Amino acid sequence: MNFRTDLAIERQEYTEKETLDGVLSKTDTIDGVRVTTIEIINGQGEKLLGKPRGRYITLETDKLYKSSEVFSATSEVLCNELRKMLPENGTILVAGLGNEDITPDALGPKSMNLILATRHISSEFADSLGLGELRGVAGIVPGVLGKTGIETVEIIGGIVKKIEPSCVIVVDALASRSTARLGTTVQICDTGVAPGSGVGNRRKGISSETLGVPVIAIGVPTVVDALTMAADVFEKAGVDLPDMDFSEHRQMMVTPKEIDSLIDKAARLIAMGINTALQKNLTAEEIAEIVG
Amino acid sequence: MNFRTDLAIERQEYTEKETLDGVLSKTDTIDGVRVTTIEIINGQGEKLLGKPRGRYITLETDKLYKSSEVFSATSEVLCNELRKMLPENGTILVAGLGNEDITPDALGPKSMNLILATRHISSEFADSLGLGELRGVAGIVPGVLGKTGIETVEIIGGIVKKIEPSCVIVVDALASRSTARLGTTVQICDTGVAPGSGVGNRRKGISSETLGVPVIAIGVPTVVDALTMAADVFEKAGVDLPDMDFSEHRQMMVTPKEIDSLIDKAARLIAMGINTALQKNLTAEEIAEIVG
Amino acid sequence: MNFRTDLAIERQEYTEKETLDGVLSKTDTIDGVRVTTIEIINGQGEKLLGKPRGRYITLETDKLYKSSEVFSATSEVLCNELRKMLPENGTILVAGLGNEDITPDALGPKSMNLILATRHISSEFADSLGLGELRGVAGIVPGVLGKTGIETVEIIGGIVKKIEPSCVIVVDALASRSTARLGTTVQICDTGVAPGSGVGNRRKGISSETLGVPVIAIGVPTVVDALTMAADVFEKAGVDLPDMDFSEHRQMMVTPKEIDSLIDKAARLIAMGINTALQKNLTAEEIAEIVG
Amino acid sequence: MNFRTDLAIERQEYTEKETLDGVLSKTDTIDGVRVTTIEIINGQGEKLLGKPRGRYITLETDKLYKSSEVFSATSEVLCNELRKMLPENGTILVAGLGNEDITPDALGPKSMNLILATRHISSEFADSLGLGELRGVAGIVPGVLGKTGIETVEIIGGIVKKIEPSCVIVVDALASRSTARLGTTVQICDTGVAPGSGVGNRRKGISSETLGVPVIAIGVPTVVDALTMAADVFEKAGVDLPDMDFSEHRQMMVTPKEIDSLIDKAARLIAMGINTALQKNLTAEEIAEIVG
Repeated sequence: MNFRTDLAIERQEYTEKETLDGVLSKTDTIDGVRVTTIEIINGQGEKLLGKPRGRYITLETDKLYKSSEVFSATSEVLCNELRKMLPENGTILVAGLGNEDITPDALGPKSMNLILATRHISSEFADSLGLGELRGVAGIVPGVLGKTGIETVEIIGGIVKKIEPSCVIVVDALASRSTARLGTTVQICDTGVAPGSGVGNRRKGISSETLGVPVIAIGVPTVVDALTMAADVFEKAGVDLPDMDFSEHRQMMVTPKEIDSLIDKAARLIAMGINTALQKNLTAEEIAEIVG
Repeated sequence: MNFRTDLAIERQEYTEKETLDGVLSKTDTIDGVRVTTIEIINGQGEKLLGKPRGRYITLETDKLYKSSEVFSATSEVLCNELRKMLPENGTILVAGLGNEDITPDALGPKSMNLILATRHISSEFADSLGLGELRGVAGIVPGVLGKTGIETVEIIGGIVKKIEPSCVIVVDALASRSTARLGTTVQICDTGVAPGSGVGNRRKGISSETLGVPVIAIGVPTVVDALTMAADVFEKAGVDLPDMDFSEHRQMMVTPKEIDSLIDKAARLIAMGINTALQKNLTAEEIAEIVG
Repeated sequence: MNFRTDLAIERQEYTEKETLDGVLSKTDTIDGVRVTTIEIINGQGEKLLGKPRGRYITLETDKLYKSSEVFSATSEVLCNELRKMLPENGTILVAGLGNEDITPDALGPKSMNLILATRHISSEFADSLGLGELRGVAGIVPGVLGKTGIETVEIIGGIVKKIEPSCVIVVDALASRSTARLGTTVQICDTGVAPGSGVGNRRKGISSETLGVPVIAIGVPTVVDALTMAADVFEKAGVDLPDMDFSEHRQMMVTPKEIDSLIDKAARLIAMGINTALQKNLTAEEIAEIVG
Repeated sequence: MNFRTDLAIERQEYTEKETLDGVLSKTDTIDGVRVTTIEIINGQGEKLLGKPRGRYITLETDKLYKSSEVFSATSEVLCNELRKMLPENGTILVAGLGNEDITPDALGPKSMNLILATRHISSEFADSLGLGELRGVAGIVPGVLGKTGIETVEIIGGIVKKIEPSCVIVVDALASRSTARLGTTVQICDTGVAPGSGVGNRRKGISSETLGVPVIAIGVPTVVDALTMAADVFEKAGVDLPDMDFSEHRQMMVTPKEIDSLIDKAARLIAMGINTALQKNLTAEEIAEIVG
């Protein structure tokens, strides 16, 4: 494969097959949002899609930043899909991966900044504010290896040991094959983050194997590798990729011109989906007012 | 031409000719910086390069953000080239074009923020600070049409009428054909900014015709159009660009992963070049201390 | 007077008189917002309040950033008061004064970034988007003298000459006497901005005299001078301010700890008030969706 | 005591005594930097100064952001004082405390962003870059309780368990009594961070007791509590603080007008001091080039 993608749905599309051994797949449309569930159930499926077994749910919409209707419908579908995956009880740790100083990689940190952290709020205080019973939520922005000298999984792992959440949700910017997916697709999966994935190519995986608790990963594609884009155009043209030096292209990324507002909108969408999934006693409006 | 570029040197290269009617060209290397001067002297040259007659100076270096030696050498060459173009006397207005909220388009505003504005400093006050005689410098960040509702040239024109500078310097982020030029090339020209140029496709030109005073433009390529990159790869491969729908690609831009630090470095380089060119009594270190 | 304030209402309160010669005053409460209109009608009133004759409307609310009800009610009152002052026809120029790099002085630039600029949108294009007839609105962030070398009034004046608006609205952060007013008060006046006012002490006035068109100023107090705060405490304590060196305090400002979110909320409030006052065919929700 | 301060030197000054039981103190001037070492050696000293036993070193200079000479001299003194405190071997973890979104509280995060993280760089790779032997350095920005739901000490503690540093350096913005100290004073101590200290009033202490490894704290005063400032003026005036409601003042902070550039300069100073103290094979210039 000449292209890079973090999306299970793009790997499935690439096979150009209706059915795959070891892969279950179905698509619904809910409130205008196309919801595709891909389930990899055995080693054969893992090999075919190059991803660990588990559930990968893809939401496809119009551009997230185009209208409030699309935004609301997508965040509600995200909330419902998340609720199906989350454990009934226990504290949830939300980790916003990525580099705040690189616009398309800032999705994780920006999302985490909009998460309603509640773990430190006593139930008495919550009651006194009229918030009722709150689910315990903690959050962390672990930074990136180049700036911290510590693998992201080590930082999250250290905190998991301390606060013992029942589940970790990681939010990360993704790379996709197709520019049409930038800002129009959300992927939720229960397998965590694979090594080498994300805009910054996280070096180590973040999963239930490495953390010891279930890990749900939520991501939005924000970049296409420049080499992937070129390869994609060649493939669509039915022409072989020429044998030339692409080393310069490997340092480049393709983003929409409105990447800054795309990141803001996607972060708000993800945070809203997580916040409403976690706090069943609060409405989206009540949460929006608290997180500002 | 299937590609978009704001660089005269790339248009010249595209012709693949040693000499062009109406175009004078020479290249020197100064302190490791490759300096190419292209002079378009008549309508024939204008037609061949698709640019108005005037001088286009291109500085080519290693990545601006790699070492302080490259940085110092380039800013000194920039200073010297600028001094050759600037009028001897009179106030200079520096305009930082572009959209602060789009990282690769923020070069102009970031550069202008590092310009030493002096027009409002009385010579008595400058003397009392031990700064000696200062050349009058003013600066403006005019914003972009989509946010102001006013063409950039109108805003600058209004200020030119008020403060009557002897010359305007505009700083703008550029589009180039080749990804290898991003953050390694500086273009200085005495023809101003052409309509349709820049990352944001400025709608109207900014030139001595529209402003009534000489206009020097300084730019650094910060993006390649996604379609241009694809066309470039096809051309290098000797394959015709396929007849397919590229409308999605037209909304995309290609930038280096380190675009944020590239913009910071390039802005410091340009500001340093301008500041030292304008204030002959101050050293680069003295200016750096004042602008912070 | 030992304290500094940009609010007419604080100067009136300071006199501790029910009625003042040359000053008309009344207070209403609309949707929980206290609306005080002070009208200075002659030179006697100007002298007593130290402000030019004209209308000063003060909105007093709970903290702007506390609840969406307070926010909506205040922005609606602001919209209505603005409509009474605005000319029926013609383009409106909105100028966001202040220094973006100093948090409490960034109110103007942040507000202007949320203004719906429409002057460049043809009525055909607006129609095609289903926006109906739009009032022409332009915006500018003129920057501050120390960075531009140009007085704010010169920059706005140059643009006024070019685009000939029927009215200018300037938005500026204000200094108040009382810390209780920070983020709870909005002042609207038809006299523009006085010399020496604002967080950054604008050097020259911005008014119909200097611009040649009506000038409406909207501001929110975001700082108290440190010396003013000390003087205020002494006065409340009934003790004379001691005769000591306050030069260090003059460089200091008092702000709420949540100043960053206060500025964001106040900017949104002002932009919403202006946008809805100007675009009578659009609802607040429709405008919010466009400006993002 | 009617005022709040995180500085040992201000508590000592407050006693107005030359010598204190259980407190050793001396002052030197090095390259224009006043260096005061206060050592609290027993419980009596702890009680008198309200701080745990240990060493508190205070550097006093002209404004950090005024000249490059002051900057260089102060960072060199800081480097030397740090070297005396640091363990000879082992990885160092640098934690940048505080809230990035509140300007005067962002000192820690901004400093940490300029730390040269090396723990993940293999000695082979460092060699290949000509960097020689690097000391292992890791960094973390733990965020604030209100946003993470996790006490800062828990986050750092979790990472300490994972990476087992020989020492933790925490960087934090401090509150001082006197406005004259803002941006002119640096405190280094070997006792960590006390509960209730910092701009944001960290709820729990961060020390060798809570982390199990030595903790060095470096801070710069960036705010004065509004109530402290008022009390300070009253005290200097020899007047008793009146018995009035100060609840509004408790939410307010006093900062210099140039707080944004103060924070930037102080962060660069602290990062430079730490980086040069840790990497003995690299010069300040070499480090500056790497961290950008």
